[in-house]
Amino acid sequence: MGEAMIDKIKLGIVGYGNLGKGAELAIARNPDMELVAVFTRREPAAVKTETGNVRVLPVSRAEEMAEDIDVMVLCGGSATDLPEQGPIFAGKFNTVDSFDTHAKIPEYYARMDAVAAAAQKVSIISIGWDPGLFSLNRMLAAAFLPAGRQYTFWGRGVSQGHSDAIRRIPGVKYAIQYTIPVTDAMERVRRGENPVLTTREKHIRDCYVVAEPGADKEEIARKIRTMPHYFAEYDTYVTFVTEEEFKREHTAMPHGGCVIHSGSTGACSEHKQLFEFSLQLDSNPEFTASVLVAYARAAYRLYREGQYGAKTIFDVPPAYVSPWPVDKLRRELL
Amino acid sequence: MGEAMIDKIKLGIVGYGNLGKGAELAIARNPDMELVAVFTRREPAAVKTETGNVRVLPVSRAEEMAEDIDVMVLCGGSATDLPEQGPIFAGKFNTVDSFDTHAKIPEYYARMDAVAAAAQKVSIISIGWDPGLFSLNRMLAAAFLPAGRQYTFWGRGVSQGHSDAIRRIPGVKYAIQYTIPVTDAMERVRRGENPVLTTREKHIRDCYVVAEPGADKEEIARKIRTMPHYFAEYDTYVTFVTEEEFKREHTAMPHGGCVIHSGSTGACSEHKQLFEFSLQLDSNPEFTASVLVAYARAAYRLYREGQYGAKTIFDVPPAYVSPWPVDKLRRELL
Repeated sequence: MGEAMIDKIKLGIVGYGNLGKGAELAIARNPDMELVAVFTRREPAAVKTETGNVRVLPVSRAEEMAEDIDVMVLCGGSATDLPEQGPIFAGKFNTVDSFDTHAKIPEYYARMDAVAAAAQKVSIISIGWDPGLFSLNRMLAAAFLPAGRQYTFWGRGVSQGHSDAIRRIPGVKYAIQYTIPVTDAMERVRRGENPVLTTREKHIRDCYVVAEPGADKEEIARKIRTMPHYFAEYDTYVTFVTEEEFKREHTAMPHGGCVIHSGSTGACSEHKQLFEFSLQLDSNPEFTASVLVAYARAAYRLYREGQYGAKTIFDVPPAYVSPWPVDKLRRELL
Repeated sequence: MGEAMIDKIKLGIVGYGNLGKGAELAIARNPDMELVAVFTRREPAAVKTETGNVRVLPVSRAEEMAEDIDVMVLCGGSATDLPEQGPIFAGKFNTVDSFDTHAKIPEYYARMDAVAAAAQKVSIISIGWDPGLFSLNRMLAAAFLPAGRQYTFWGRGVSQGHSDAIRRIPGVKYAIQYTIPVTDAMERVRRGENPVLTTREKHIRDCYVVAEPGADKEEIARKIRTMPHYFAEYDTYVTFVTEEEFKREHTAMPHGGCVIHSGSTGACSEHKQLFEFSLQLDSNPEFTASVLVAYARAAYRLYREGQYGAKTIFDVPPAYVSPWPVDKLRRELL
């Protein structure tokens, strides 16, 4: 009687920082999903969740819930959390994560694949927008337009890695770094000029810093601008602000960017073909979490089909991320 | 000794109009593919191919080549060619096509699926950019950002359907119609205003016409502007040009457009999240053909795995369109 019983996908969240909070909010927007519990390394009683009525449990209790959770959304960081947690969880649960250390993806994939395949589970790794949707578009564009040049621009947005690097400088109390794409470079690419661009020509690094009382601001600025790998290769701007201004103006986490593939077709490559994918995000962690949660749906479907092991965005049939049945997708979106 | 033998994918092309020519050129850019023959309803001897040394055969001889061709690229039109040819070829070959009559896709899918499944072949239908890549992006964006509004803008580009409609008016010798998106409407969408837009507010129709000597130009223009479904609901501009100007300025086939999904996340939908996919194509048929040819690769892989039946862009794991092995994709593009 009444409503049909819907078999909701039961999700857990591991790690309750910005990404975990975003995942909680994203799950609440998907009627075919249910959040079973948030797992944290902090004292559970001290964690106040975004939506209120969610069970918060210590991460040590996750394993005993293996029967109650279809997919674990791993919301830890790539530097230390995921390399450790990923393989542990992949041995007990279907998982999705946003592992984003590009250079270490092959190694992480191999470990996750071995564990997930042996456990007959599915782990979709490196989901989000870069790696993730940007990767997908780079791959598709290169397959369609083999004669072409590809560009990725990031920003305007906050780079956590660069912000952290500034914070490690003595005398810095708070700091944030915005990556800003160089508009002129983007426009040249969009005009099909296929320019060769140096690191400096593609992005600007814009830093806002709150100094400790009495700190040498000139020295801080010099240390930022000359920091190898992070800032030395860029035009870097440093602005000192008060703590009050910092907290008022610089706590949001916008990001975005675009992948542009400038290709050509025709017997003499006489036809320019421009392919562009872009994102403009008020909240990077909330968007990334929204993508993760949609791929959790895909992980569950792959699991039900017995397609075990690690997967990336390249492997997943797109329809698996949608809550709609494929006949509805064909009818309404194709 | 020497080079490793590479097992190239053997393709055939059915129909040698602009799309078929584009497919021939696209195949030539993919070293893992080989064009076995072009099949035409015209007199084969009268067909001069783009790349020169390609076998041209009457379409009636296709069936006898079933063993020699891995995938047939069906380059006929959606109005009459594909509804007839699609099911015939799907019973003998793996196929890809660009069937684009949106309202009839479910019916076409059902017919192709029945035939291909029975024949143990794979048919990927409705490939290109709309339907195709635009559909894919509409689907992904809606899955990631369920709270959101979606817009598709087309152009600036040539609409064959609208150009044909003008040509059917008595007194018209040549005609072309450009669909132009309204910049202001696009900008409002990109600013996250989520406007409700009428047909007239989204696109302009810009027509260039060569009239027959002595024809009543005012009457032709009136007939265009008041034509229901095609022009009456739009701001339509009609410019009469000489045959010379027409042939000089209006024979290219540009097109493009964008899918914009304007979504939001956060407990109170306070964060705007803009997702955009756009194309700017000097040659619509050459780009569409390039996508078709990449999906021919996917059709062959699905066939080798025994995943028979009809598929759409929603069903195909993205990696299957790439010539690269997945470990290289993970290493270099993820």
